[in-house]
Amino acid sequence: MEDPLDGLRSLMASHYPPIDALVVPSEDYHQSEYVSARDKRRQFVSGFSGSAGLALITMNEARLWTDGRYFLQATQELSDRWKLMRIGEDPAVEAWIAENLPSDAAIGVDPWCVSIDTAQRWEHAFAKKQQRIVPTCSNLVDEVWKNRPPPEINPVIIHPLEFAGCAVAEKLKDLREKLAKEKASGIIIAALDEVAWLYNVRGNDVSYNPVVHGFAIVTLNAAFLYVDKKKVSAEVYSYLEVNGIEVRDYDAVSSDVVLLASGQINSSTTKGTRTEVQNDAGLNSTESVNGESEAKEINHNIIWVDPGSCCYALYSKLNSDEVLLQQSPLALAKAIKNPVELDGLRKAHIRDGAAVVQYLRWLDDQMQEIYGASGYFLEPEGINKRKHLETVRLTEVSVSDKLEGFRATKEHFRGLSFPTISSVGPNAAIIHYSPHPEKCAELDADRIYLFDSGAQYQDGTTDITRTVHFGKPSAHEKACYTAVLKGHIALDTARFPNGTNGHALDILARVPLWKDGLDYRHGTGHGVGSYLNVHEGPHLISFRPQARNVPIQASMTVTDEPGYYEDGNFGIRLENVLIVEEANTKFNFGDKGYLAFEHITWAPYQKKLMDLRLLAPEEIEWVNTYHARCEEILEPYLDESEMAWLRKATEPISV
Amino acid sequence: MEDPLDGLRSLMASHYPPIDALVVPSEDYHQSEYVSARDKRRQFVSGFSGSAGLALITMNEARLWTDGRYFLQATQELSDRWKLMRIGEDPAVEAWIAENLPSDAAIGVDPWCVSIDTAQRWEHAFAKKQQRIVPTCSNLVDEVWKNRPPPEINPVIIHPLEFAGCAVAEKLKDLREKLAKEKASGIIIAALDEVAWLYNVRGNDVSYNPVVHGFAIVTLNAAFLYVDKKKVSAEVYSYLEVNGIEVRDYDAVSSDVVLLASGQINSSTTKGTRTEVQNDAGLNSTESVNGESEAKEINHNIIWVDPGSCCYALYSKLNSDEVLLQQSPLALAKAIKNPVELDGLRKAHIRDGAAVVQYLRWLDDQMQEIYGASGYFLEPEGINKRKHLETVRLTEVSVSDKLEGFRATKEHFRGLSFPTISSVGPNAAIIHYSPHPEKCAELDADRIYLFDSGAQYQDGTTDITRTVHFGKPSAHEKACYTAVLKGHIALDTARFPNGTNGHALDILARVPLWKDGLDYRHGTGHGVGSYLNVHEGPHLISFRPQARNVPIQASMTVTDEPGYYEDGNFGIRLENVLIVEEANTKFNFGDKGYLAFEHITWAPYQKKLMDLRLLAPEEIEWVNTYHARCEEILEPYLDESEMAWLRKATEPISV
Repeated sequence: MEDPLDGLRSLMASHYPPIDALVVPSEDYHQSEYVSARDKRRQFVSGFSGSAGLALITMNEARLWTDGRYFLQATQELSDRWKLMRIGEDPAVEAWIAENLPSDAAIGVDPWCVSIDTAQRWEHAFAKKQQRIVPTCSNLVDEVWKNRPPPEINPVIIHPLEFAGCAVAEKLKDLREKLAKEKASGIIIAALDEVAWLYNVRGNDVSYNPVVHGFAIVTLNAAFLYVDKKKVSAEVYSYLEVNGIEVRDYDAVSSDVVLLASGQINSSTTKGTRTEVQNDAGLNSTESVNGESEAKEINHNIIWVDPGSCCYALYSKLNSDEVLLQQSPLALAKAIKNPVELDGLRKAHIRDGAAVVQYLRWLDDQMQEIYGASGYFLEPEGINKRKHLETVRLTEVSVSDKLEGFRATKEHFRGLSFPTISSVGPNAAIIHYSPHPEKCAELDADRIYLFDSGAQYQDGTTDITRTVHFGKPSAHEKACYTAVLKGHIALDTARFPNGTNGHALDILARVPLWKDGLDYRHGTGHGVGSYLNVHEGPHLISFRPQARNVPIQASMTVTDEPGYYEDGNFGIRLENVLIVEEANTKFNFGDKGYLAFEHITWAPYQKKLMDLRLLAPEEIEWVNTYHARCEEILEPYLDESEMAWLRKATEPISV
Repeated sequence: MEDPLDGLRSLMASHYPPIDALVVPSEDYHQSEYVSARDKRRQFVSGFSGSAGLALITMNEARLWTDGRYFLQATQELSDRWKLMRIGEDPAVEAWIAENLPSDAAIGVDPWCVSIDTAQRWEHAFAKKQQRIVPTCSNLVDEVWKNRPPPEINPVIIHPLEFAGCAVAEKLKDLREKLAKEKASGIIIAALDEVAWLYNVRGNDVSYNPVVHGFAIVTLNAAFLYVDKKKVSAEVYSYLEVNGIEVRDYDAVSSDVVLLASGQINSSTTKGTRTEVQNDAGLNSTESVNGESEAKEINHNIIWVDPGSCCYALYSKLNSDEVLLQQSPLALAKAIKNPVELDGLRKAHIRDGAAVVQYLRWLDDQMQEIYGASGYFLEPEGINKRKHLETVRLTEVSVSDKLEGFRATKEHFRGLSFPTISSVGPNAAIIHYSPHPEKCAELDADRIYLFDSGAQYQDGTTDITRTVHFGKPSAHEKACYTAVLKGHIALDTARFPNGTNGHALDILARVPLWKDGLDYRHGTGHGVGSYLNVHEGPHLISFRPQARNVPIQASMTVTDEPGYYEDGNFGIRLENVLIVEEANTKFNFGDKGYLAFEHITWAPYQKKLMDLRLLAPEEIEWVNTYHARCEEILEPYLDESEMAWLRKATEPISV
C-alpha cells in the first residue's frame, strides 16, 4: 500500500495557498475522543491507533504527538518515517512549529477537525513568527484515503424517560434559562454526547459511544437537530417534533449558523410546543435603565459556543464580537446525574460486577486446567506447574471475548463502553493497550494479567479495572500492587469540602506510590456517562491544569484508577466508579458542606497480590468491608458455584 | 485623639485632582509584610494591627480587607466607623470598587506603597467603569499623622561568610548571568530581604526582620545600594566597595532609575572590582546571525523588575516596553539554601528547641504551683484543683516574655522573628493573635494554651508552634488535636517527585481534618529565611493559586503548620520547620528524582492531648521516633532537671 504521506505532500504542495505543514488531529467534526472508523484520519496517516494523538506532516518530516498512556504503543506502531513527540516531555505541537518551521510558514488544517480553543492557541503561538493557519477547503486526508469506510446509517433511538430521568422539555427550559442569564439568544452544541443528552436520544455512530453524529442549535424559542435524515424514523421524528425539535440535514448546520448569527433562524415546528422561557421583551427590559428598552437590543444576538467542543469552521461563520466563548452549560448539567440516572448507574454496575466475577472464576478454572496454574487463590509450592499443551489456548483477545459474553447476558446490555484492555505481563504496561486478534499475547500463569473494561447498559455505563495473577507473583509485584491499592483506597475514603477540585484530590492516590518513588503517567479519574461516553467532563481528577477548573460536586460520577507500569515487565491498575455524595461529617467547618465518595463498582481485589504488611489496619478493614458488601450485593446475580468462588475471594483478611 | 478619617477626607477633597476613595495598603515602599513603626499607616488609620490588610476610605465609608487569619482580631479592633471585608468571602477590593463606586471615580494611592502587579490588577478592574488610579504626590496618611515615629538610624551590619555561606561576588556573578540570559542590562531590587541577602548585610530597620531599608540596582557592571548613609559605617563602606557596591542616598533611587532606563547609570567605584561576567560584546554577538553585531543593540536596555515587590512609583519611571516584568531571580536563589545556611538553620533550631523545652518545663511548674493545675503530664482525677490566688499571676504576655528570656540565653540570638503568639483558650482561635500587656488573658489550667514563636539567630531563623493543656482537655479538644497532628505528620512524611508544587501538597495536611468536616483558614507552610524574614517566598504550601507557580525544590525551607480553630473556644496549631531534601526512594519512576522533608524543629508534642485510638500505628511510631530524637539532640543544651522533664515528655507511647 502506498504511504499516505507521499500523497498528502503532493496535495500540500498543490493546495492554494501552498501548505508547509499539515496538522492531522485525532478528532472528528465534533471534537470527539472516540471517532467512527471513517474519521480515524490520524490513525490512517500515521499507523498509530491510540485514542489520543496529533500528526504533523511537513515536506520532509512526520511527527506524532501523544500522551504518556501511549508512549510505548506509539513506539511500536509508528514506522521509521515518523518521530514520536512525548506530550509533557517534548515541546507542544504549536511551540515546536513556532520554533522549528520558518517564518511565514502556512500550517494547514481542516477547520472542522480543530476546536476554537486549539486554533486560537496555535494562532497565538504562530503569531511570533508570522506563521499562520490555513484552513483547507476539504480534508486532504480524505482525498488520499482510497478505501475510506462509507458513512454508516444507524438509527436514532429514543432514550426513554425511565432511564434518562429528566424530560427534554425540562432540559430545554433549564438550558434556555441559562442562555437568558448570559443574555445569549442561542447556542451551538457540537459535542455528540451533549446533543444526545439534551434530546434524550442515543445512536450507534461511534463505536462504544451510543451517540448520533449530529449538531444541535437551540435558541430561546426553537431547537434543531442536524443529522442525516435517513437515520430518523417516523416515530423519532414525531417524538422530536412533540419536544419542539426540528430535524434538519447534517450539512445544513453550516448555513444555519450563518442565519443564527444574523438572528434569522426560524423553526417551522416549534410554534405549538414552545417551551416556557422568559420572553424577549422581558429579557431586554432587564437591561433597561430608564424605560428605553427598544434601544437596548445590543446583547440580543449573542451566540454561545463552547470553545473546547465547537470547531473552528463553525466559529468562523459567527460575528466574533457577538460570541460568548464559554464552556457549554450542558457539560456540567450532564455531569451532575439525576436520581434516576444514579439509580440506573448503581444497578448497571451490580450486573456488570456479576459478569466480572463470572469471568474471573471462569478464567481461574481455565488457567488451572490449561496451564496448570495454581490459580487465583493459591501460590504454587515449588514447581508443580504442568503445561497442558492442548489445542485450546487462551489469548488476550479470546478471554476478553469471553468477558464480553458474560456481560452480554445481562439485562439492558447494549455493547462495550470502550475497547477492552486485556493485557498479559509487559502488555499491561501499555496503559491503553488494545490487543489485536492476530498478534496478541497468550495468557501466562507466571505473569500479571490486567483487564480494564466496561459496558454500555441502557441504565448506565460501566468502567472497571482489576489486576490478577494466577501463579506466584514476585515480592516486587505485590509491593507495587499494594501501593496502588493504598492509593485507590485513599481516594475512595477521602472527604473534602465543597469547592475542592480534582487537581487537589489527584495527589491522594499518588502519595502511597511516591513513597517508593513510583508514579503513573495518567490522571486518576474521569467522569462516566449515563449510557453515554465512558470518558466525560467537565471535571476530572488529574495533575493536568484543566482539573483545576471544575470543583467536584455532589452527584457527579468519577473513576478512581491509580496504577503503576513497568515497561517491558508488567502493569497494575485498579479502578472503581465512584459517585460523589454529601458526606455526613461530624462537623461542618466554614459551613461549606463536605463531600465523600460512594463506590458503585463490585468485584473483588486479589488478596494474593497484597503484601499485607504494607497495609494499615484501616486499609485491611476497608478491603474486608468492601468484600463483604460485594458478596451481599452480587448474590442475586450468581449461581451457587460462582457464589462459592466469590465467598472464597471475599473471605475477610484477619487484621 | 482625632480620628484620622476626618483629616484624610479633607485632604482627599482638596487633592488635585480630587480623590473619591483612598486606598491605604499595609505595605511600605518595599512591599514588605512586616513594616517599621512609621510605616504602619494602615494600622494608624484603621486601628487594625494585623500584619495583612488594606484600608479603603471613601467620603462616607471606611472598609478594611483582611484574610482568614485576622477575621476575629479585626472584628475586635475596628471601630464602628469601619466595615470588615473578609478576603475569600467578600469581593476583592478592586471588584468592590468597580461595583460600588461611580464611573470615573478617582482612586488615590501612594504609588510607592503599591506593587506593579497590584496596580495593574486594579487598573484592569477599574477600566470597566472608566475609574482610574490617582497616584498621590505625597502620602496623605503621613500628612495627618501628627506623632508619626521618626526614622530610626540603625547600622548596616555585615553578615559574615561563615553564616552566609556564599560570597557577594558569587551572588552578583550568578545574578548577572541571569540578567544576561534574559538579555537584561539591569535589575531594580526592592524587596528588603533580597537586598540584604544579595549584599550579605543585615540591619534593624523593621522589627523582627533583620533588614535594612534600602533598594539595590545591579547592572552588568555596577551595583548600588540606596540607603540612608548615616547607617553605613566606614568599615561597611569599605566592605561594600571591595565587593563593587556603591552606596548612594536612599532618595537617589528615583533619579537613578531614570538614568538606568536611559542606559546612563554609571558607578564611580566598580572599575577595579568588576565582577566577571560575559562582556557586552559577547552578549550581543550571541544574538548576531551574520556578523552584524553592531546593529543588534535592540535588547540592550531591558530592565528587570519584579512586579510583586517593585512599587508602581519606580516602575512608572521606566520605559514600559523595555521592562522585563518577572519574578526577581533572587527570590528563588535565596529560597534554595546553601549547605552553610542549612547547617546554621539546623543548629539554630536545636538551640531554639532547647529554649522551648525549658519554657514548657518552667510553665508546667508554674501552672501547678500557681494554679494547682495537674500539669503537662497528668489529667486531674476528679476536682482536686486548688487555685492559689497569689500575687504572681501568669499572663499571655508575661509567659511569652519568659520564653523570650530562655531564647535570649542562646548563642547567636539576635531577637524574635515575629511577635510571639501566646494565647489562651478563645484567644488561640485568633490565628495571628498578638497579646497586649494591658488587656491580655491570664493562663488557665482549664484551657488550651497555644504558642507560636520564633527567633532570629545569626545562623538561622526559627518558627515553631506547640499547643498544650495543663488540666483536663475535653474529648473534643483531643480529637481535634489528634486530627491536626495527623495532618502535620502526613505532610512531614510525604515524598513527591520533583516538579510538585505546594498547592498539590497542601491537601495532605488537611485530609485528616476534612474526614471530620474540620479545616483551617490559612496555608499549611511558608518558606523561612536564613537570619532573614520568617515568611519567605517564592514557594508556599497553600490552597492559594500562587502556590502553583513554584515547585518545591531541594534545599528549600518550609513550615508544616496545620491547625484547627473554634471561634470563642480554642485553637490548635502544630508547626515544625522542614528542609526539602532528596528522597532516597527505592525506585525513581520517570527519572524525575523524588523529594522528602527533614524536620529540623525539636520540641515534644503533648501526649495528653492525643487520642491514641485515632492514631495509626505508623503515626504513633513517627511520634516515638521524633521524641527519641528530641531527647538525643537537645541533651547537650539542657540541665539534668530539664532533661528529666524532657525524658518524661518523650517517653515512647506503646503501640
